[in-house]
Amino acid sequence: MDQNTNIVIIGCGAGGGTAAQFARKTDRKAHITVIEQGAYPQYSKCGLPYVISGEIPSFNHLIEFSEEWFQKERIELLLKTQVQKIDIHTRTVETKNCGKKNNIYYDKLIIATGAQPTIPPIQGIYHDNRLAKNVFVLRTIDHGKQILQALYNARKAIIVGAGLIGLELADTLVKKGLQVTVVEALPTILATNLDEDLSNLVLQHITQKITVYTNHMVTTVKQENDVSIEVVLKNRITNEEQKLNTDILIIATGCRPETSLAQQIGCKIGKTGGIIVNERSETNVSDVYAVGDCTEYRDFVTREPICIGLGSIVVRQAIAAGINAAGGNYQLPKGVLLTRTSTFFDIEIAGVGPIHDALKNKTVISGKFTGSSRPEYFPGGKPITLKILVDDRTGVIVSSQAVGENAAQRINVFASAILRETTVEEFRKLETAYAPPIAPTLDVITLVCDVVSLKRNRKKLTA
Amino acid sequence: MDQNTNIVIIGCGAGGGTAAQFARKTDRKAHITVIEQGAYPQYSKCGLPYVISGEIPSFNHLIEFSEEWFQKERIELLLKTQVQKIDIHTRTVETKNCGKKNNIYYDKLIIATGAQPTIPPIQGIYHDNRLAKNVFVLRTIDHGKQILQALYNARKAIIVGAGLIGLELADTLVKKGLQVTVVEALPTILATNLDEDLSNLVLQHITQKITVYTNHMVTTVKQENDVSIEVVLKNRITNEEQKLNTDILIIATGCRPETSLAQQIGCKIGKTGGIIVNERSETNVSDVYAVGDCTEYRDFVTREPICIGLGSIVVRQAIAAGINAAGGNYQLPKGVLLTRTSTFFDIEIAGVGPIHDALKNKTVISGKFTGSSRPEYFPGGKPITLKILVDDRTGVIVSSQAVGENAAQRINVFASAILRETTVEEFRKLETAYAPPIAPTLDVITLVCDVVSLKRNRKKLTA
Repeated sequence: MDQNTNIVIIGCGAGGGTAAQFARKTDRKAHITVIEQGAYPQYSKCGLPYVISGEIPSFNHLIEFSEEWFQKERIELLLKTQVQKIDIHTRTVETKNCGKKNNIYYDKLIIATGAQPTIPPIQGIYHDNRLAKNVFVLRTIDHGKQILQALYNARKAIIVGAGLIGLELADTLVKKGLQVTVVEALPTILATNLDEDLSNLVLQHITQKITVYTNHMVTTVKQENDVSIEVVLKNRITNEEQKLNTDILIIATGCRPETSLAQQIGCKIGKTGGIIVNERSETNVSDVYAVGDCTEYRDFVTREPICIGLGSIVVRQAIAAGINAAGGNYQLPKGVLLTRTSTFFDIEIAGVGPIHDALKNKTVISGKFTGSSRPEYFPGGKPITLKILVDDRTGVIVSSQAVGENAAQRINVFASAILRETTVEEFRKLETAYAPPIAPTLDVITLVCDVVSLKRNRKKLTA
Repeated sequence: MDQNTNIVIIGCGAGGGTAAQFARKTDRKAHITVIEQGAYPQYSKCGLPYVISGEIPSFNHLIEFSEEWFQKERIELLLKTQVQKIDIHTRTVETKNCGKKNNIYYDKLIIATGAQPTIPPIQGIYHDNRLAKNVFVLRTIDHGKQILQALYNARKAIIVGAGLIGLELADTLVKKGLQVTVVEALPTILATNLDEDLSNLVLQHITQKITVYTNHMVTTVKQENDVSIEVVLKNRITNEEQKLNTDILIIATGCRPETSLAQQIGCKIGKTGGIIVNERSETNVSDVYAVGDCTEYRDFVTREPICIGLGSIVVRQAIAAGINAAGGNYQLPKGVLLTRTSTFFDIEIAGVGPIHDALKNKTVISGKFTGSSRPEYFPGGKPITLKILVDDRTGVIVSSQAVGENAAQRINVFASAILRETTVEEFRKLETAYAPPIAPTLDVITLVCDVVSLKRNRKKLTA
C-alpha cells in the first residue's frame, strides 16, 4: 500500500463535492473517494425552482461538476451507492451498490450527508409511507421532475411555508400561470430571515400576486379526485377552519440534518440536531470532518449553536474540511454571519447577522431608512429599505436587513462591517461610491447608520 | 447683539450647502449665512451630463436645496454675491452684490470655493480672454446650457481628457447622435481611476462607439467657419501631427482648487494646490474651516496629500465642518478612501484606494478575477472584473478596482475592508450573499481575494 492519504467523503452535494475539490487542490496525490446515494454528481439544489420556471433550461444544467470533471481530477465518484456502516476502528466505510457490498479504507473521513425535508403533522399527507398523490417537496432533481410533471395539469397550488424556498417556488408557479396560495404557521413570512417590519414590506408586495395566510396551518389533506386535493386550513389564533381546493400541494417547511451515520460513530449532535463542528470543520471524532446542512456551528454574533442551511456557508465549511483533511490548515471565522439573499416577484431581499428576536441577550438599538438607489433629482431611482441592529453597549453593528434595489451587495457591505466588528460611529463615515446614475453621495448604507447614531446620541443626552 | 454663533459659508456648492445644513442641524439658533457668486443654490454638478443627455429633464432639476429650503431652515442665502475680502482680525467678510458692498461678521468661517476647470495650453483656445467660439468646459449650469445650445447644430465633437467627466460626456454626446472623438495626453484612459489593465478593458469596450486617441494632445484650435473648428492633434510619442474637424470642442482635463480668498488670509496651501485641512475640516487659521474641491486632505492608505475631487468626499468634509463650526464634534477618518464610480456606454466602473502607481512606497501584490454576477448554470449572468492590491508585508487590502456588473456596490464592500484595515486572508473568508439569480456561492469578491492569497502563499513557499 502506498503512503498517500485516503480521503473518503460521504455525500456529493455542494458540501461533499466542494470538499473533494479543495482536498484535491491541497494534495495532488491523495486518494479521494466520494460516495453519493443519488444518481447525480454535485448539482445546485438552490437552482431547482429556476428549472421549474424555465429560467434555467434543464435539470442537467444544475450539475456544477460532472462525472468527467471528477474523473479528470482523479476523484473516484461512486453514484447510486449507499453507506451501510462506518467502522472507526478499522477506518472503513462499508458501501452497497446494486446489492454489491464493498469496504473503503479512510485516513480522513468527511461527512456531508445533508438534510431531509421536514413534513409537518398533516392528516392524510402520507399514502403507503410516501407522500400522497400531488403532494410534493423540493430538495432533489427527482423532486423537481415530479413537480414539473404535475404542473401540466395544475391550475392551483398551495405551498406550506413562507420561507425563502416557499416564496421562490410561489414566484415560479405564478410564472407558470398557476394561482398560488402560501400558508405559514408563524405570524410573519420569512420569519428567520427578516424582522417583522421588513417582512411586512415584502408581504404587502407579494400579496398583489398571491394569497398568503399567516398564522395558519394545513391540518388535513384529502384526495378529491385524480387531479384535485381538498385541504383543511386552520387559523392558529381563532381555531377556525376552512376548506381549500388545490391541484398540487408543496411542503416547504425546512429541513432536519441527516445525521444517522454520524451518530453511529459517536459524533456529538447539538441542540439544533446537527453534527457539532469547529472552525476547522472537525467533529469530536478523530479524523472525521462534517460539513453542510448536516452540521451545527456557531453564530458569529450570539455564539449560539446554529444549523447550517445556506449554500454559501456549506461551500465555505467544505473548503475548510477539504483543505484540512488533505493536510492543509484552514480556519473559518469564529461563527457564521448568515449572509443571505433571495429574489421573488421582482423584489430583492437580503440579510446578515441574527434577526432581532435572536438577540435576546443583547440590548440592541435599531434603525431603518428607506431611500433611493439614485439621487432624488435623477429619474429611475429604485427604493431600498435598510435596517441595522447595533449592540447598544459597544456600538458595534451586529445585524442588517435589506429589501429593494441591490439588497444583496449592500448587505455584503454590512457583512464586512460585522466580520470586523465595526461600530456604527465608524461605519457612518465610510466613503461610499457615488455617481448620479448609480448611487447618491450618501448611500442608504450611510443614512441608516446615521439614524442609529442619532438615536444613540439622543439617548446619551437624555440619560 | 445676541449670543448666537455667526457661521458664514463662502460658496453654495455641495460643500457649502451641506455644511450649512449640518450646521443648522447641530445648532438650531446659529446665524448661518451662505454667500454664493452664482445664480443658483446648491445643485449637483455631477448631474450636468445627464441633463444634456436628456435623462434628467432640466437643469432646474439638479437643484438639491432650493431657496425656499434655505429660507425654511433660516439660513440666509446670498446669491450673485461676491466675497471681496476677508478680515480675520475684525472677523468680517466683505461682500458685493450689484455694486452694493456689505460686511458680515463671523465667529466661524467655512470656505467652500470649489475649483476652476484647467485649460491646457492650446494655441487659439482663447478669444478676447474667453474660450473661443464652440469651445466649452462643463462645470456649472451655465456651461451646461451653452453646450446644450451648441448641440443643435453639431454633428461632431472632440473631448479633451479621458477621465470620468470626459467619458460621461462622450456617452452623453453619442446619445445625442454626435460622432465623438476623445483625446487623452496620457498613455491610458481613466488614468487616475484605474490601473492600465482595467482601463484597457474599458477602452476596448468604448472604442466600439467612439474614437479615442491616447498619448495625443490638441495643440491648436482654429475657427474654420461659424459652425466648424479645425484642431491640430499631436502624437506625444512620434510628434506626428494631424488635423481634425469638429463642430464643438470640450475641455475636460480636470480642475484646480480655487484658493485665492483662503491665501489672502494665510491659509496654508498644500503641494496639490488645495487648502490644507485636517480631519475636522479645519484650516491652519483659527475658526476657519475649508471643505470640498478647494481643499487638500490625506490619502487613507499612503498618507500622502491628495486633492479632493469627488462629491462623496466633499459632502463628508462638509458634514464635519458644519457640525464642528456649530459647536459639535465630528472627525473624519484619518484619510480619504477615494471610493469612486461611474457608468458610460453601459459599463459600470468603480474603485477605492490608490491606483498601483500611487503605491510606490509599498510592496504590493495584486490579483484580478473575472467572474459572473450569477452561477455558471444560470443564464443571464453579467461579467464583473475585480482587482485588488494588497500590502505584501502586512497582508492588508489597500485598493480595489472593478469593471462590470454592480461594480460600485462591490467596491463599497472593499471600501469597508480598507477602512478597517482588513487582511486578504480574513476577507477571503467573508460570507457573501448567495442566491442563484443574484450571485454565486463564492462571489468575485471572494475569488479575487483567493487569487492574491494563493500568490502570497506560493511566494512564501518559494522564498
